[in-house]
Amino acid sequence: MLASASRLANVSRLEDLAKRDGFDAVVATCPENVTYLSGFWAMSQWVRRGPQAYVLYPLKGEEPCLVADSGILDLVADQDPWVKEVRRYGYFQVNVDPGADLDHADSAQQLLFETDAYAGSVDALVAAIKEKGLAKGRVGLDETGITPQCMDQLTAALPNATFVRAFGFFQRVRAVKTAGEIEILRHVAGVTEQAIEAALAIAEEGVSERDMMRAFNTCLVQNDAAPVVGCIGFGNRSAMINAQPSERTLRRGDLIRFDVGARYRHYRSDMSRGACLGEPSRRVAAGYAAVEKGVLRSYDIIKPGMKVADLFNAVVETVRCEGIPHFRRSHVGHGIGIDGYDPPTISEKTPEVLEEDMVLCVETPYYELGFAGLQVEDMLRVTKDGVESLMTLPTALRIV
Amino acid sequence: MLASASRLANVSRLEDLAKRDGFDAVVATCPENVTYLSGFWAMSQWVRRGPQAYVLYPLKGEEPCLVADSGILDLVADQDPWVKEVRRYGYFQVNVDPGADLDHADSAQQLLFETDAYAGSVDALVAAIKEKGLAKGRVGLDETGITPQCMDQLTAALPNATFVRAFGFFQRVRAVKTAGEIEILRHVAGVTEQAIEAALAIAEEGVSERDMMRAFNTCLVQNDAAPVVGCIGFGNRSAMINAQPSERTLRRGDLIRFDVGARYRHYRSDMSRGACLGEPSRRVAAGYAAVEKGVLRSYDIIKPGMKVADLFNAVVETVRCEGIPHFRRSHVGHGIGIDGYDPPTISEKTPEVLEEDMVLCVETPYYELGFAGLQVEDMLRVTKDGVESLMTLPTALRIV
Repeated sequence: MLASASRLANVSRLEDLAKRDGFDAVVATCPENVTYLSGFWAMSQWVRRGPQAYVLYPLKGEEPCLVADSGILDLVADQDPWVKEVRRYGYFQVNVDPGADLDHADSAQQLLFETDAYAGSVDALVAAIKEKGLAKGRVGLDETGITPQCMDQLTAALPNATFVRAFGFFQRVRAVKTAGEIEILRHVAGVTEQAIEAALAIAEEGVSERDMMRAFNTCLVQNDAAPVVGCIGFGNRSAMINAQPSERTLRRGDLIRFDVGARYRHYRSDMSRGACLGEPSRRVAAGYAAVEKGVLRSYDIIKPGMKVADLFNAVVETVRCEGIPHFRRSHVGHGIGIDGYDPPTISEKTPEVLEEDMVLCVETPYYELGFAGLQVEDMLRVTKDGVESLMTLPTALRIV
Repeated sequence: MLASASRLANVSRLEDLAKRDGFDAVVATCPENVTYLSGFWAMSQWVRRGPQAYVLYPLKGEEPCLVADSGILDLVADQDPWVKEVRRYGYFQVNVDPGADLDHADSAQQLLFETDAYAGSVDALVAAIKEKGLAKGRVGLDETGITPQCMDQLTAALPNATFVRAFGFFQRVRAVKTAGEIEILRHVAGVTEQAIEAALAIAEEGVSERDMMRAFNTCLVQNDAAPVVGCIGFGNRSAMINAQPSERTLRRGDLIRFDVGARYRHYRSDMSRGACLGEPSRRVAAGYAAVEKGVLRSYDIIKPGMKVADLFNAVVETVRCEGIPHFRRSHVGHGIGIDGYDPPTISEKTPEVLEEDMVLCVETPYYELGFAGLQVEDMLRVTKDGVESLMTLPTALRIV
């Protein structure tokens, strides 16, 4: 049984970082940050651009507040997020059977519908900000989910508030995971590995990249995970950075590159493995071993306090020494969580150090057109004094 | 064989509407509009918020231009979109095997990588705007995909250009579909119907909502479609607006409500059907028949030139006369295309009239907590002189 999704946010880190930035409150507006901060999955904003949902999180003791369209109040009732104050906006018609004995979720929904609806999302947010004494406050607002029109309306309604763009702030908060998040990330990593196994189980001459994608995705949805990124390339197509499955069929000696990810209970996976139908060429085997050793090197050296830039340099240097002397990369990985790329980006220029409970994807892809794409990517967690893998699949080139 | 995805945009409509709005150029920035306008699927912006891709479409004869991150140039080469001018930005390392005989896509990618990279997405867009003589122009810019930071940079770099928010403009363009779009929408409708059939095929006592969701999603991914919206509710849970599948198991007499959609080649489906395990209660049967007749009424009256508000009123009135006198709705449907909600919204206040080749979802959901959710939703196309269904599943309540 997995931990409840109700409170996954790293609230203590959020409060520390908000104090440092001098925020009186923060507001989440994009799907990832709304779900992260409140536990509430506002379906409409996940499946389209435009629908507005917000979480106002005051930092001086007032209760946090969720702003949601009336048309998703059933989800509020059903999910029962830990943020209990809900302000709804807009009209939506739901009837109630007067003779029925309502269950818990239906009763909760009925109560939500009995509250007054604000005209629009910003009206609800403005009212909450005013009532919590924040109308003259400094508010860190995630600028990526609110529409420009709503932002105009918000600043006009609160001329004495100071709004600071805070998408980067939320990213920094999310960089260090809570125990609940790690449990989900471990689960989604396992499901994704299982899907790679399911795809490789059908590997034989004549099978197409699309056939393998279908096997991969089928395994994901059978495990209640959603396909997100599915790059599967055979032979020279494996060198395509984002290889989208085609009708190209598998031939003996082909390299198969997976760079794949899924979403489970809103959290993302991202990993890479290579396989070969029959014996690989010496060049593929040697190149793959080099990129593999780059990733394995990270297990020897990662610990809290390490400079991310040092990790980058060590991994790149390892790949170069182990067989690809001209290996170059902009980054060799990134954080992962409710978004596919959380901080830190593992690059030469990253100023941060590693912290305990960061979850990282470490990857060393090498793309050579006309030859192949060689990639190993592991999901791992920075522990108190080292590192732990969230993976179980061997990193070595798999022969199928 | 489906039509090529390379040119699905309604370019003549775009040019007419742009003339009316006095635009010298338009810029697409959100995933839907970038893919719509160029045929290019910029994966990174589809799976996350933040990655930038643009299409500049000048209206005075200059060539359109695609702006893309260097890390997705393989997708440009592989997809070969009809917009041929590509400006890339950012660093990404791809090598080339000097001894290899590159295939068409790899050669195209190599050529793209040989072009100079701009530092950032806005640098590339600014250069394109200047070179096409639009630096003093009136530019309709989709405000939903560009970050506020990039928007600041753009307006600072082009102080004499006038930027007008154009997400609504793109929605109006997209409202009338091309033949290629209709073909894809028909296909995704068919695949989604097949998935409903697959889900109902496992209906028996003890099966859970999640089991049925898995059967539904498995059928989708087996047909290369992606799950997007999956609301499946049994019994009283069917009354939840966005019923998310739970462990609730099916019991004899339960209503099953599907309100489901998928994505295939970027285009969306959205449809609803009801079924019952065994005989429905008289109340369910009568209520379902009422909402069904509301949808069927639309087939009698839809034609180009009809006021959308009249369609709303006729459908609502039909449901009221046929058995739910207190039926109320904010809308009884919407357009659908590359986004799940295209114009027109079928509401009382919509000023537009129907046009040939609009593709509509007509729906009459009735939610009653403690009782059930009754819903029929059809995808249909406005034809030259009437209407054509994109559906084949009967609308009647299915007994399983």
